[in-house]
Amino acid sequence: MQRYFIDSNQIDESSITITGEDVHHIVRVMRMNEDDQLLCSCSETRQTALCKIAEITNDMVVTDIVEWIKAETEIPVRVTIANGLPKGDKLELVIQKGTELGAESFIPFNAARSIVKWDEKKGKKKVERWNKIAKEAAEQSHRSMVPVVEEPATLAQLLEKSRDYTYKIVAYEESAKEGESSAFANTLKNMKPGESILCVFGPEGGLAEKEIDKLVEHGFVPCALGPRILRTETAPLYVLAAISYHFELM
Amino acid sequence: MQRYFIDSNQIDESSITITGEDVHHIVRVMRMNEDDQLLCSCSETRQTALCKIAEITNDMVVTDIVEWIKAETEIPVRVTIANGLPKGDKLELVIQKGTELGAESFIPFNAARSIVKWDEKKGKKKVERWNKIAKEAAEQSHRSMVPVVEEPATLAQLLEKSRDYTYKIVAYEESAKEGESSAFANTLKNMKPGESILCVFGPEGGLAEKEIDKLVEHGFVPCALGPRILRTETAPLYVLAAISYHFELM
Repeated sequence: MQRYFIDSNQIDESSITITGEDVHHIVRVMRMNEDDQLLCSCSETRQTALCKIAEITNDMVVTDIVEWIKAETEIPVRVTIANGLPKGDKLELVIQKGTELGAESFIPFNAARSIVKWDEKKGKKKVERWNKIAKEAAEQSHRSMVPVVEEPATLAQLLEKSRDYTYKIVAYEESAKEGESSAFANTLKNMKPGESILCVFGPEGGLAEKEIDKLVEHGFVPCALGPRILRTETAPLYVLAAISYHFELM
Repeated sequence: MQRYFIDSNQIDESSITITGEDVHHIVRVMRMNEDDQLLCSCSETRQTALCKIAEITNDMVVTDIVEWIKAETEIPVRVTIANGLPKGDKLELVIQKGTELGAESFIPFNAARSIVKWDEKKGKKKVERWNKIAKEAAEQSHRSMVPVVEEPATLAQLLEKSRDYTYKIVAYEESAKEGESSAFANTLKNMKPGESILCVFGPEGGLAEKEIDKLVEHGFVPCALGPRILRTETAPLYVLAAISYHFELM
């Protein structure tokens, strides 16, 4: 069933009113009519309602709430993915697949070896596009919230943000080469439902040694993700899949 | 360090001779000279040697073996990914990322809901391209073998091949909806090093019910991969990351 994300102020006691671009999608793309059913998810409350269309006007679709749905589709821990800005459209892949795999938010950052130079002007459009990709992937994968993609941060800003997280890890190739293999699993074993984890990944050339030093100073644990070398866009997907496996399947 | 894949017949007692396209890569792209070092991996024996260039001619690079390397970069169980033929270049993504994540082989198959019609003539070139992607990803991710991508099979052929595997699973969306969440982890808990697992995934529209029935008849276990709906190209990466996490990090 088609799912639309709404803000909490669109919810009344027994009805939800859909506005904006989704109206076009419901009426023109899906060609729905009165009495057709759809799902409305609220990112703030992480609740989803089964709704029935009551009225369609030019700029809104008014629905009656049939019932609130119990199904839990969110990972029980909160995962933020911070990627050193990579080349090309690799970050789009991380955002699309990372949303399917359950990430709560994404923070791109300007790493020392990021080749892409961030352009404030063009950048705004790019951040909008990233958030649109997250929204579409959230709808398709039946998430009950839309992950937020933040504007690119500096390393200093990322370190400042890291204070808000219970656990902090950084994927580090050198750890893999030295045969380290338990830090990531040990971190997950310690985590309890509701806690948060910030996971940092370098761009194509990896993180510089001084970046690793700064991260470790701020409490980040360097982790290997197996003995193979993963690309910058593959490592976050590995971490998210492993977290889902650990907390949702094991 | 640059890695090249060789056949066992290129290995002599104390030297390895590199021929073919890799000669161009070593001499023209990497601009290596005598005494420079490189790695040679043999897919058959899964061994890797550190080598030093002894002689460069027009069509071969002769190297001296410095030492055989002990590092184990292969998952201790053997994983084959069988994907219902998807649209566009999604299978390329599965092969590239799946190789990084440790798959041993790939079997595309014509699923009932595969939209792509397989063209025998054009197909040969496609299979060559897929195998080239696997080779390049294996080099970059430090694999000690190159996964094989087979020609697309029919479901009947896939069922026939499945006899060679110790464990067989099929990712099934309906299992997720019914709240099933332990079949995949239970399978991994039972697996021992050296054993093999065949993992089957549907194309975009999923597997048809009669395909699931046939697979289950042949001993495949239907598994959910968490409560979110994963795209056809994301599910194999989830399975591989979870297997690596289970056997290499936990």
